[in-house]
Amino acid sequence: VIVTILGAGMMGTGMAMPLADRGHAVRLVGTHLDGALVKALEQTRRHPRLGTEIHRGVTPLPFDDAAEALAGADAVVLGVSSAGIDWAGAVLARHLVRPVPIAMVTKGLEAHAGSLRILPDVLADALPAAVRTVPVTVGGPCIAGELARSRRSAVVFAGRDVEPARFFAEAARGPYYRVEVSDDVVGVCVCAALKNAYATAVGVGTGLHERAGGAPGPVAMHNLEAALFGAAVSEIDILSRSLGGRSETVAGLAGAGDLFVTCQGGRSTRLGRLLGLGRTVDQARVEMASAEGPVTLESVDVARTVVQVLRLRAGPPAPERMPLLCRLHDLLFEGAPPESLFDA
Amino acid sequence: VIVTILGAGMMGTGMAMPLADRGHAVRLVGTHLDGALVKALEQTRRHPRLGTEIHRGVTPLPFDDAAEALAGADAVVLGVSSAGIDWAGAVLARHLVRPVPIAMVTKGLEAHAGSLRILPDVLADALPAAVRTVPVTVGGPCIAGELARSRRSAVVFAGRDVEPARFFAEAARGPYYRVEVSDDVVGVCVCAALKNAYATAVGVGTGLHERAGGAPGPVAMHNLEAALFGAAVSEIDILSRSLGGRSETVAGLAGAGDLFVTCQGGRSTRLGRLLGLGRTVDQARVEMASAEGPVTLESVDVARTVVQVLRLRAGPPAPERMPLLCRLHDLLFEGAPPESLFDA
Repeated sequence: VIVTILGAGMMGTGMAMPLADRGHAVRLVGTHLDGALVKALEQTRRHPRLGTEIHRGVTPLPFDDAAEALAGADAVVLGVSSAGIDWAGAVLARHLVRPVPIAMVTKGLEAHAGSLRILPDVLADALPAAVRTVPVTVGGPCIAGELARSRRSAVVFAGRDVEPARFFAEAARGPYYRVEVSDDVVGVCVCAALKNAYATAVGVGTGLHERAGGAPGPVAMHNLEAALFGAAVSEIDILSRSLGGRSETVAGLAGAGDLFVTCQGGRSTRLGRLLGLGRTVDQARVEMASAEGPVTLESVDVARTVVQVLRLRAGPPAPERMPLLCRLHDLLFEGAPPESLFDA
Repeated sequence: VIVTILGAGMMGTGMAMPLADRGHAVRLVGTHLDGALVKALEQTRRHPRLGTEIHRGVTPLPFDDAAEALAGADAVVLGVSSAGIDWAGAVLARHLVRPVPIAMVTKGLEAHAGSLRILPDVLADALPAAVRTVPVTVGGPCIAGELARSRRSAVVFAGRDVEPARFFAEAARGPYYRVEVSDDVVGVCVCAALKNAYATAVGVGTGLHERAGGAPGPVAMHNLEAALFGAAVSEIDILSRSLGGRSETVAGLAGAGDLFVTCQGGRSTRLGRLLGLGRTVDQARVEMASAEGPVTLESVDVARTVVQVLRLRAGPPAPERMPLLCRLHDLLFEGAPPESLFDA
């Protein structure tokens, strides 16, 4: 079949690998911001940020070709960032000519009228009835750079309707890409959205340890980081259940598994470590930007969105039931000391 | 109050720190195998394996003094290994003169008449009615070497009756030692017992990665280890629920938190890494013994006990619901290839 991926960033391009390996024709369409990435892919077949070559079954296309690529697609994968969800919904609404299965690697929670909405619902609402299908979300521990290198990965495809999730599972699974199918789309979305915030909390533990004279570097056998990790999984479970998700999802690939891999490195944990070492958020941002260029700190955005909604008290859970996320919020936005995370 | 700890190994001695810091008189009584440890503690106040000094409020005592130390105790902590549970039960039965709260850091599950029993129940049965209380189990991510250094740690005290758990929580909690109280003793015991087996499974992922040319060392941002971690938490939840435990326990400090810290290092993950690199269990055992001296491999014991009981099919869960543990068992005892863990 023809699968069109919208968004040529790391996750969109990573998803191209198992699909192309299964023999599908993959059209990898850049967004209006991905011009340089697509040009590089066309010229070298190498993704500059992933550092890997794309599969020969993948055709990189500029955004100018989006209309044709979407109109001819048998299935669509959204690979845009959470900030691009409204834009992507509008693009699909304009160019889809028939209802096709849609999967999204886009993660996040949106504040809406005092409560939190999952992005598959946001996307479905953006689509006209004539082309609307139930969007599938992709969860589980799947670092794009690993997937692009065909490293063994296990993920969860979830939808309010499992049929489109099964469709993508059948289309994508293979020897190195294992796919579970679930109808707990709320649980999977909550896990995926919150992992960066909690990875920052665990990283704060690493920084505190280092400041206290412990060995620097990645997480070692430290009770503190593990306590924060355990509290994180517990709070993800509380929020997920309050929105209708199931505990089994959190106690599995999408929750504990994805948080585990996120805590082993990456921007969110690096931010946390700097905060634990005593930097302010602004100092940490400058320090990270000077090393990596301008950075999007997803953990900051999700902590703000979720805690603001919790504190409106329009519905459960009460903020008291998510003390770690609230203290992280206060560390990020109100200058609370990093040590306060342990008191949660 | 007077707290007598039976067992001067790492966990027993680690537990002495928060208790002594709270002003209790702690009697740290070695087992009949701890003679050299107690002698070292008496002479130097330094624990040879922990590498730290014991608190001035701790009195190390040889096993010859157990009768007196137990008869005069207001509370007892069992710090013996799981292999010593029957011995310790007999010692308490002989020397306790009145019912006192008992906490145990001893972890494990016992096969009994085709099903699995948690150790607090085994211990309670070993005590005469006149001195029997409901034993409290200690769970959560708590590496003894960290606790002995007063590093921030958060744990769970659980008992079928929460009153004795509350007693120990009040007695031990402090600025660096946070204690949750729970009545889900089954959940906490299952988490504590299984973590070493699953840490070995995650370590197999590390070894496979390394063999495939990935960077060596501790867990990096690898999808495979995280997939195994997620599957591990999921299977711990399945076994715990089938024995009457609750998912919240697994999705928290006792489950995800403790497994997290166990996966960051230690014997169980080192064993797994060697298996992932292609060594047999016997080769791995020899290799580890030559580096560390004779080693007890708890992960091997728990995988054998649990999988043997599951395969008797005397009750739930069916072994098919715990494929990762079963494949680990077959890797350990039947020469199955390490790659088979991912197929689970």
